[in-house]
Amino acid sequence: VIGLGRLSLNQATVQNLTAAEAIELCVRYDIPAIGLWRDKVAELGLATTAATVRAAGLHVSSLCRGGFFTHADSDARAAAAADNRTAITEAAMLGAGALILVAGGLVPGSRNLALARQMIADAIGDLVPFAQRAGVRLGIEALHPMFCADRCVISRLGEAFDLAALFPADAVGVVVDQLCDWIVPLPPDMLLGRGHLGDGFIDFRAITAQVLAAGYSGFAEVEIFNRDIWDTPADETAATVRDRFAAVLG
Amino acid sequence: VIGLGRLSLNQATVQNLTAAEAIELCVRYDIPAIGLWRDKVAELGLATTAATVRAAGLHVSSLCRGGFFTHADSDARAAAAADNRTAITEAAMLGAGALILVAGGLVPGSRNLALARQMIADAIGDLVPFAQRAGVRLGIEALHPMFCADRCVISRLGEAFDLAALFPADAVGVVVDQLCDWIVPLPPDMLLGRGHLGDGFIDFRAITAQVLAAGYSGFAEVEIFNRDIWDTPADETAATVRDRFAAVLG
Repeated sequence: VIGLGRLSLNQATVQNLTAAEAIELCVRYDIPAIGLWRDKVAELGLATTAATVRAAGLHVSSLCRGGFFTHADSDARAAAAADNRTAITEAAMLGAGALILVAGGLVPGSRNLALARQMIADAIGDLVPFAQRAGVRLGIEALHPMFCADRCVISRLGEAFDLAALFPADAVGVVVDQLCDWIVPLPPDMLLGRGHLGDGFIDFRAITAQVLAAGYSGFAEVEIFNRDIWDTPADETAATVRDRFAAVLG
Repeated sequence: VIGLGRLSLNQATVQNLTAAEAIELCVRYDIPAIGLWRDKVAELGLATTAATVRAAGLHVSSLCRGGFFTHADSDARAAAAADNRTAITEAAMLGAGALILVAGGLVPGSRNLALARQMIADAIGDLVPFAQRAGVRLGIEALHPMFCADRCVISRLGEAFDLAALFPADAVGVVVDQLCDWIVPLPPDMLLGRGHLGDGFIDFRAITAQVLAAGYSGFAEVEIFNRDIWDTPADETAATVRDRFAAVLG
């Protein structure tokens, strides 16, 4: 059981809102935390977002996202590293509980999973001292294997754990993924094939029990990529998110 | 390295052909084995298909398919069992190397993976004596996790192995999946998102080395679900299948 006091709304769920509007929405629906996205933060301004979220009394459960470490040439890898350092700085200023890392797919021109995973481990290793100085924890997110080739070669939670275990636990952890349901059939763009909790096939109760048994005491973020939900009035979405969270996890 | 002497064409790759036409195609392109589908066999007639494939000197590497064991009510489970016994008889008459099992998704109305997997183990156990008497080996096929909810809750080869290991090895084995490549982006119907060998992201050389190291000495079936390939003249497809098999696995 996870109570509503641990609900966080990832702002990707209300894609059409600005960061300021998403923050207001959370306040209006008594959602105590928010997951922010870098592009939305940049639109509002980093300092303004930090001030707004603080004034609203919200926690920032995560910042999305860093990662995308797998590149064939060293210039691109250096650019990715620089962008991740910027993201870490942003996460620190926002007081985010974690910077979410989507690790990246296969190295362009290569089919070698081991190579891609080693490149990711190396890149995270290079970021760790910077993240530690900033007081930001990096959260490795395993993605569904259907995204393995082009988005994230870390497909299983166990792989994410093994990778995180290479580094100090205060610097690198894992993200058990943000909450949404698996709906069938997937829409043409499979990235958008996610549903409200309870609308699909995921056994949230069993998975939640395991997460809690492992000692997790943080926020549980609802993040839904779905065109129909994005086209729904945000207030309705927020109400549904709250209701479903209570019904499915409470 | 797997030579062309071990190539099999699964007839789903040339979806628009009848079984007779697919058999002729294999002969014309010096492909020594074919994977047959039950609906196509039924169209041509079971005895006629068996005679045609024998006269052509082809091996039948597999028959697609049995399985779909997960049902909420016992009548539906009994019907699935009966259908699987029929499929076993067909496989025996065709001299098929294996009857491919696509196990089935979650039990309707349930999100319990363990329940679905237990139902599958029970159903296979019930079929084993019948399969042994018929001299047919059941091949458990793990499907990509994106098909877990609605098609096959056996998502990993390791799960397929663990399941097969419950039964005598002459009766139940695993299918490492039929050969096709992973292409990005997937088309709107994700079932059809497969490409010719070499057109996608799969490291066939590494996987093949593991399969051979495990002692596999049978046929390697190419099975491609892809609308564009289905719309291509079958002769062109057969030539491409041969060329790519030689280039990627040879």
